[in-house]
Amino acid sequence: MEARNQYLYIKIAENILERVGAGELKPHDQLPSERDLSEEFDVNRLTVRKALGMLESQGVLYRVPSKGTFIAEPKLSQEMNVLVGLSDQLIRSGLQPGAKVLEISIVPAARSVAKALQVGDGTAVYYIHRVRYANKAPIAIERTYIPVEYYRGLEAYDLENRSLYDIMGKEYGRPVRLARQGLEPVLATGDEVRLLEIEQPAALMMILRVGLDIRGVPVEYSKDLYRGDRNRFIFMTQNPDAEQRKA
Amino acid sequence: MEARNQYLYIKIAENILERVGAGELKPHDQLPSERDLSEEFDVNRLTVRKALGMLESQGVLYRVPSKGTFIAEPKLSQEMNVLVGLSDQLIRSGLQPGAKVLEISIVPAARSVAKALQVGDGTAVYYIHRVRYANKAPIAIERTYIPVEYYRGLEAYDLENRSLYDIMGKEYGRPVRLARQGLEPVLATGDEVRLLEIEQPAALMMILRVGLDIRGVPVEYSKDLYRGDRNRFIFMTQNPDAEQRKA
Repeated sequence: MEARNQYLYIKIAENILERVGAGELKPHDQLPSERDLSEEFDVNRLTVRKALGMLESQGVLYRVPSKGTFIAEPKLSQEMNVLVGLSDQLIRSGLQPGAKVLEISIVPAARSVAKALQVGDGTAVYYIHRVRYANKAPIAIERTYIPVEYYRGLEAYDLENRSLYDIMGKEYGRPVRLARQGLEPVLATGDEVRLLEIEQPAALMMILRVGLDIRGVPVEYSKDLYRGDRNRFIFMTQNPDAEQRKA
Repeated sequence: MEARNQYLYIKIAENILERVGAGELKPHDQLPSERDLSEEFDVNRLTVRKALGMLESQGVLYRVPSKGTFIAEPKLSQEMNVLVGLSDQLIRSGLQPGAKVLEISIVPAARSVAKALQVGDGTAVYYIHRVRYANKAPIAIERTYIPVEYYRGLEAYDLENRSLYDIMGKEYGRPVRLARQGLEPVLATGDEVRLLEIEQPAALMMILRVGLDIRGVPVEYSKDLYRGDRNRFIFMTQNPDAEQRKA
């Protein structure tokens, strides 16, 4: 067992988190200096620095060189128990969705794409590479593959101002009903940093998603990268064993 | 719209991913040199380097200085649609669970802990700080708070070799039935790098979880940090609107 004081900075970090949670510290408020915080908490400055470093790594604080440390905007909480497109998630949170199409083209499905969509290698698929925005700030990069067969003419729709899910459902009568999603934390690469207007090193949430239509046919394969400092993903899960014990 | 060739490295990365997926490249296999890959794909070395950098940032590859680039172990896929403790997740994947207790103590609940557990500020809670292992390799750090009132004597159990959920259910008759979990990608701090035996910069999955018992009483508040290069989190989600259209 290691000494407890070694993790004292975690308690300092928790205290600052609580002040943010309670609304005592608001987005873009400046934090007191390390020296003032070390006096207030009666700990050394290294401990304060570790606490602030931890909160910065979690996207709770941000630093502006030669200015100081500030409280970040609260993250967007995306509810994952129901499948909702990003546009609708944003609208529900009172944010304005937007998108910039970097590329839309018809390409032959590479092996991994073909496998995910359960089509033959080389089958024609739309490749849609977009940056997504919330109130004009970039929050995600999406690379989406859609079988041409079911959504012919997709490139004619306005993929910068309309939800892809909305178009798939309303215009083609083939909405995404069910999705299998895999979430992985990854480091941002150079291009991602540039497109998302962030700085390295940065943690992103990579989401690999296969969307199925009502009959269980795969109609969407997407690799999304969400800014970690702007997004969290929330869901409820049940323990079936505990359920049985109740019965 | 940006030039398509700018993202050529993504296609190279996909191709390497496919070879991994198909089993042509196996864990700890060495990749060909950048020069050989650039000849094979008929692209310049910068493009190869960007492709490898992207795969490294996603935990698919790892580099050994002055040796080369190697295929990483496959990530542990944790199914999130049912609530299962990490020990059981590991056992289901054929891995040996383990834990090291850094600290277990009774502490007064700080405000954020009290709020999550719906108890008064300062209520006695167990604080359990553990590193979790899969086949003796560290994969996660957990900081868990459990109300003393319902689990008195918890410190007497072997929290290094037994599942906490198992103890809560079998020994106290009060299993965790439902959990609300929030997933956020974060950067690893110095302590986390040391405990998880990784190198900076590294992306971790932070999971904040409130576990409820059968009557809906909060009995667990946990902040977990999972190695991003070793874990992915998978779940199925339904679109209720698409469901209605079917009916």
